[in-house]
Amino acid sequence: MTPEEQKKNWEERTLEPILKKFPERKEEFHTSSDIPLPRLLTPQELDYAAKLGFPGEYPFTRGVQPSMYRGRFWTMRQYAGYATAEESNRRYRYLLEQGQTGLSVAFDLPTQIGYDANDPIALGEVGKVGVSISSLEDMAVLFDQIPLGKVSTSMTINAPASILLAMYIVVAKRQGVEPRQLRGTVQNDILKEYIARGTYIFPPAPSMRLITDVFRYCQREAPRWNTISISGYHIREAGSTAVQEAAFTLANGIAYVQAAIDAGLDVDSFASQLSFFFNAHNNFLEEVAKFRAARRMWARIMRERFNAQDPRSWMLRFHTQTAGSTLTAQQPENNVVRVALQALAAVMGGTQSLHTNSMDEALWLPTERAVRVALRTQQIIAHESGVADSIDPLAGSYVLEYLTDEIEQRAEEYIRKIDDLGGALAAIENGFIQGEIQSAAYDFQRAVERGDEIVVGVNAFQVDESLELERLKVDPAIEEGQRQRLSDLRRGRDATRVSELLGWLENAARGQDNLMPVFIECVENHITLGEICGLLRRLWGEYRPPAWI
Amino acid sequence: MTPEEQKKNWEERTLEPILKKFPERKEEFHTSSDIPLPRLLTPQELDYAAKLGFPGEYPFTRGVQPSMYRGRFWTMRQYAGYATAEESNRRYRYLLEQGQTGLSVAFDLPTQIGYDANDPIALGEVGKVGVSISSLEDMAVLFDQIPLGKVSTSMTINAPASILLAMYIVVAKRQGVEPRQLRGTVQNDILKEYIARGTYIFPPAPSMRLITDVFRYCQREAPRWNTISISGYHIREAGSTAVQEAAFTLANGIAYVQAAIDAGLDVDSFASQLSFFFNAHNNFLEEVAKFRAARRMWARIMRERFNAQDPRSWMLRFHTQTAGSTLTAQQPENNVVRVALQALAAVMGGTQSLHTNSMDEALWLPTERAVRVALRTQQIIAHESGVADSIDPLAGSYVLEYLTDEIEQRAEEYIRKIDDLGGALAAIENGFIQGEIQSAAYDFQRAVERGDEIVVGVNAFQVDESLELERLKVDPAIEEGQRQRLSDLRRGRDATRVSELLGWLENAARGQDNLMPVFIECVENHITLGEICGLLRRLWGEYRPPAWI
Repeated sequence: MTPEEQKKNWEERTLEPILKKFPERKEEFHTSSDIPLPRLLTPQELDYAAKLGFPGEYPFTRGVQPSMYRGRFWTMRQYAGYATAEESNRRYRYLLEQGQTGLSVAFDLPTQIGYDANDPIALGEVGKVGVSISSLEDMAVLFDQIPLGKVSTSMTINAPASILLAMYIVVAKRQGVEPRQLRGTVQNDILKEYIARGTYIFPPAPSMRLITDVFRYCQREAPRWNTISISGYHIREAGSTAVQEAAFTLANGIAYVQAAIDAGLDVDSFASQLSFFFNAHNNFLEEVAKFRAARRMWARIMRERFNAQDPRSWMLRFHTQTAGSTLTAQQPENNVVRVALQALAAVMGGTQSLHTNSMDEALWLPTERAVRVALRTQQIIAHESGVADSIDPLAGSYVLEYLTDEIEQRAEEYIRKIDDLGGALAAIENGFIQGEIQSAAYDFQRAVERGDEIVVGVNAFQVDESLELERLKVDPAIEEGQRQRLSDLRRGRDATRVSELLGWLENAARGQDNLMPVFIECVENHITLGEICGLLRRLWGEYRPPAWI
Repeated sequence: MTPEEQKKNWEERTLEPILKKFPERKEEFHTSSDIPLPRLLTPQELDYAAKLGFPGEYPFTRGVQPSMYRGRFWTMRQYAGYATAEESNRRYRYLLEQGQTGLSVAFDLPTQIGYDANDPIALGEVGKVGVSISSLEDMAVLFDQIPLGKVSTSMTINAPASILLAMYIVVAKRQGVEPRQLRGTVQNDILKEYIARGTYIFPPAPSMRLITDVFRYCQREAPRWNTISISGYHIREAGSTAVQEAAFTLANGIAYVQAAIDAGLDVDSFASQLSFFFNAHNNFLEEVAKFRAARRMWARIMRERFNAQDPRSWMLRFHTQTAGSTLTAQQPENNVVRVALQALAAVMGGTQSLHTNSMDEALWLPTERAVRVALRTQQIIAHESGVADSIDPLAGSYVLEYLTDEIEQRAEEYIRKIDDLGGALAAIENGFIQGEIQSAAYDFQRAVERGDEIVVGVNAFQVDESLELERLKVDPAIEEGQRQRLSDLRRGRDATRVSELLGWLENAARGQDNLMPVFIECVENHITLGEICGLLRRLWGEYRPPAWI
């Protein structure tokens, strides 16, 4: 008897009499991406070499390193930053002391959109959602006593990514560390800002140029630095499904690779420095499958579409963050559970680095204690659960391989559609991508309202509670201090040199030269983030989303 | 190329150059049971029908119900009880209100070893680790306003299990609920008390008789009641490995089935009322494999060794509790993470009911808040993670199927050895089982001391901390109140009827009749637990472990 016949017999003999008495909880079961979950999966024909292959080899379904976490654990990298550079520096050193293995910088909103702390537009936002960095001096304080030659640093900065990277490079040089020794990432992913996150500055053309300039600079000068972190995280947080997250992120990746090739770069010269950033969401099996499907798809895209020859160009390496949007202000300790399950999915999916959210992130800036529990979550998975001792431990699971295939097929369909629309940028400008995400977000919201989706503590299992967690507040005096420091800095610098350099920057920005060396020179001479971005704003204009979005 | 040849090529081509530069974290990786974890597993020949089969069918590897959690979730059953029956009743009603779906009663130590609250031996222990129940009246208060015809109740009681069950039956009758409507479990597992838990009273022969009397009574009168919960939990807590937990628990199960057959019962008349109780420990994949291996083994034992014909006799149905021994007094919030991962393993392994430990259990009696977070852990897994929408979702995973086979083989070897020693009771009396557990516990302890095993917050990642959790304390006045109540009860009852019944009990205990109806009559007439056990102690003597243990 074939497995299919055996299954048919089982259904008649055992299942159906039970279902008559005890129907299932739902008529149909499906994942967050609306992939139907068949009741029972049994062994399927599987072309092992083509579909899974071996870790560290094409198509990398089982992971990008041949020994994965048997070699070393993922990088434990908690996104952090608030108030001043001093405060954030203290938090980083606390985290390193607690066993964190990489840094991840959160910048405040003014910094993210290229305004100095003393710009009127920054009022009330300085140091609020991240650290305020306006100048090289701020950056130097941020990394005080942290050896940049040894630590790997991720910076969540996009529109002005190259300018902050320039500051980082100069601070490292002051420590005696050369760019080629630097390890880390700038997020530098403008397309998902247009789609979901909103901290863009410039229109697409100059934005893409800034990005390819970073590619070009780093390929030569900082070969261990990840030049971009192509981010599905915020696409997912905006309410997309797992399939959409994979599809739109890879579509953006395709756009960046194409832009760099169009700018004259050889694909194998920059591709191994691209990195990705995904969300670890609730639906456990679907999430593990998503990571594996994304790796397989990217390998094929790079090899077949872009004809990359170097195996390192085919590898999708990614950071993961647990899903902030799933955390609840109600019963905040429940978030520790959500984060643990999501983090396990990321590890089962083979992530290269991981941020675990703090239980109080839905309420306020995380306290030290909450951040510690979040880091301990990773350490318990690494050291106590044993899952890091096997490579791709869920490989072969009938459900998992089914979901991996389904996600791949559905995401490929999206990518074909985006290709037909003229690529990711066109699909953003005509609103297709945003519309798909909004419609998924709306469906989920409706399902929660109907009670078809349960959010524990929110639409079920509520309690009357008074919050008893300790709370971190940012001192409002910080803003004033930061402004003062900036005026002092400006008064103390060489005005002639500054205006000379700004002239050079203007010329370079109007022309085709790589802007990275210009930025480095500017920040080294105490020209601020806001001054550089202000000049570029005047030259290039600002991005305005289509009115109908 | 065969998969094996492909793998060989991968090793030479990709793996070895990397290992030369980046050796693995350990020379060898193994599970908690010392099962080696091969670096990479690829598809293996698998006789699907024989090894996995279909859920709800022999050998039940994929679960005992054909639709598993697509039908309904496992029973969420938090073990609870402390102080008086009134206090515990309040906690049960709180838990039911919070969405718990089954009850689980913790008794205090005097109750567990058959002493009334006013016995001098009970001094200082009344209401401490569980609720104090000496009489029918206590039991009535414990279940006040809880409809016993609707709820399923588990009682962690062993040596005097039949007496407490008798009280439960009488309380239910008072509510108008017949024994045949009752659903629940008495633990009633004396062998693991001799091995690991220590709350035994009588020597093996009368203890086994008490157990088979419950089998015999319930098969006729309470067919939906689980007559025993054959428990690996405490064997594991005592330091055994996963393999030992499975092996020794099933060996005890074999001993109970044999004892009942020897007492003249037909195997199919009682086997479907046997249930099991396992531990969900840290090593995630090994734990999932353990549950699946245990199901497959028990099915074969019942069908092949005992020639049971009814498929329900082959099914291993089990309760799971997360591993209390893995929880730390240090950084208690970390325990929420451990419990979440362990609970996920239990669900992936197909448990029928689950207790999730509270984060503060390593410190003191759990507070309401901590118990709620533990229950929410189960609700989040059930309602948010999506894992309950597939049946046996990890089936087919190369690592998981490998571990399932390995655990089965190693546990079978143990069972053969125990058979050679003359069965579980003989293997307990000669100390074999205890010795194996002690040696595993010692090995683990040594590994922690050497730092080969990391316990987060204990031998790594420590912090200086002041505990900030709220704390539950039992009022010492409880003991006095409980004693007073008992004297009042004794004064108020019909002394002639009492001495008449105690005479009947003595005769029955000396003879062969089923003791269950006698216990029911006795407790209904307010004879206390301590009085019944006292009489039986005089007749049967007490168990004394061999001096060398």
